[in-house]
Amino acid sequence: MTDPRRTGPHAFTGLSAFPLTPLRDDAVDQAAFAGLVTRLADAGVDSITALGSTGSYAYLSRAERARVSRLAVEHAEGVPVFVGVGGLRTSHVLAHVDDAEAAGAAGVLLAPMTYQPLTDDDVFELFRTVTDRTELPVVVYDNPGTTRFTFTMELYARIAQLPGIASIKIPGVPADPAQARDHVTAIRAATGEHVTIGVSGDGFAATGLNAGCDAWYSVVGGTLPSPALAITRAAREGRAADAVAESARLGPLWNLFAEFGGSLRVVAAIAEHLGLAPHRCLPLPLQGLTDPQRAAVRKVVDELGLGR
Amino acid sequence: MTDPRRTGPHAFTGLSAFPLTPLRDDAVDQAAFAGLVTRLADAGVDSITALGSTGSYAYLSRAERARVSRLAVEHAEGVPVFVGVGGLRTSHVLAHVDDAEAAGAAGVLLAPMTYQPLTDDDVFELFRTVTDRTELPVVVYDNPGTTRFTFTMELYARIAQLPGIASIKIPGVPADPAQARDHVTAIRAATGEHVTIGVSGDGFAATGLNAGCDAWYSVVGGTLPSPALAITRAAREGRAADAVAESARLGPLWNLFAEFGGSLRVVAAIAEHLGLAPHRCLPLPLQGLTDPQRAAVRKVVDELGLGR
Repeated sequence: MTDPRRTGPHAFTGLSAFPLTPLRDDAVDQAAFAGLVTRLADAGVDSITALGSTGSYAYLSRAERARVSRLAVEHAEGVPVFVGVGGLRTSHVLAHVDDAEAAGAAGVLLAPMTYQPLTDDDVFELFRTVTDRTELPVVVYDNPGTTRFTFTMELYARIAQLPGIASIKIPGVPADPAQARDHVTAIRAATGEHVTIGVSGDGFAATGLNAGCDAWYSVVGGTLPSPALAITRAAREGRAADAVAESARLGPLWNLFAEFGGSLRVVAAIAEHLGLAPHRCLPLPLQGLTDPQRAAVRKVVDELGLGR
Repeated sequence: MTDPRRTGPHAFTGLSAFPLTPLRDDAVDQAAFAGLVTRLADAGVDSITALGSTGSYAYLSRAERARVSRLAVEHAEGVPVFVGVGGLRTSHVLAHVDDAEAAGAAGVLLAPMTYQPLTDDDVFELFRTVTDRTELPVVVYDNPGTTRFTFTMELYARIAQLPGIASIKIPGVPADPAQARDHVTAIRAATGEHVTIGVSGDGFAATGLNAGCDAWYSVVGGTLPSPALAITRAAREGRAADAVAESARLGPLWNLFAEFGGSLRVVAAIAEHLGLAPHRCLPLPLQGLTDPQRAAVRKVVDELGLGR
């Protein structure tokens, strides 16, 4: 491992932007990926998470993932880069961890990918094995929509006690602000103050940040960093109403996420529309949006002024 | 592609036994795997499906899967070998198809693995792409417990019209015999007579075969072929009550499957107990059963005389 960039817990706060890993003819479009990373660094995001679910890590080979990790660090202009290291097999996860270290990642993001359903003990041992392997900070990636694994509060607490656990990416918060605050408070009580809590599910971000989440692990922020930064800065500076208002302004975008089967296909269509990624940039079998769906996306992008 | 062994639809009937792919120190235990395959061929199963979910295909590298496919054909003593070719990315699936052909497989089994949820069109295009690539018969592998993809009857019908679709592996049938028959009849109406229907979910096998399923795609049959053959032969020869009686006799085994989170971990523990696989033969992070669970498994194996 070559000189891993160590970071304190402050790195796991604010806006962590998740860029796509665009494909062209079933190969990583390295120029497009580098362009997305540079765009994020220029916008001033707090961190960049390469090879999240948005970055299609689960679909890429080890060599592709190692190359993408290196490209991310090279083009991040000093912004901390976290790298998704998930895999179905523990030994493959460890290989990805080694590659992330070699690339100069500032942390790793680990989701318990499943084929056979996993037990809590399986998942705990996976995290224990990874924290044994690396001194890089680890983000616990709780994303039941893709992994189909459901963390309990008790498992959060067990994993949070492992050395090097820096943050937990939670899938969302209740829509009601008071309930959201109770939820975040309960997680913090379980995990301890040394673990930051990051919200995901972009439509939940303003509520989550206002409820006390330290970070936003953001799909949309990986392609449209400016509005995501506006929400993040407002919430983190105590301007809760401004965060809510900016999120409400983006309501038509959140509606597309709900209507078109999640954020990834919509954000890929936006990146393609804006010339940031080649046409049909997702890995097959993910075909991306249909033409009528893409037209609806373009309309929202134009009406909200997201292309500027 | 080197001389793929072509088979007619008759190959996709009867008992298809799914062997484990045992690991030892995170590498395929080739001798143990060859032993399992030979055991199945000697028992007289109708086909062997290597690299099914039971064979941990989702956890293995391309090289490991190619090697396992070759070993299966080499040790099957002429029994048709089907090979699981699923993967998260279409191009990886095609590589597995090529490797299965090169190994001499008699057919391929394709499950729509998911990380991002797939649409019906995504899955249809995946099957279209695979049937374009190969002349080997294709088994549609409907296993929502692992893939989290749910087939509709309409999608069954669309896919069944593709050239080369030979069989559909369904996840189970209703427990009530009349309802089971209606279900199988409805699937057959959708898919046509050229597609055989194979039940899985071992506890459903007798009901499914008695309800008109042509095949049983069997986890337990990959490790304990004799009782699985007894059920299959009885049902296929019209001795429905005998099939039900033998399945009822194995009730304590089906109860373990339900109690211990599915069939794979239990069957792995049985194979380990019988000396057919090394201890802890599943790929990590799957830890397999706990010691008290293993004791319960041993008790059932002994009481049912499954070790003979």
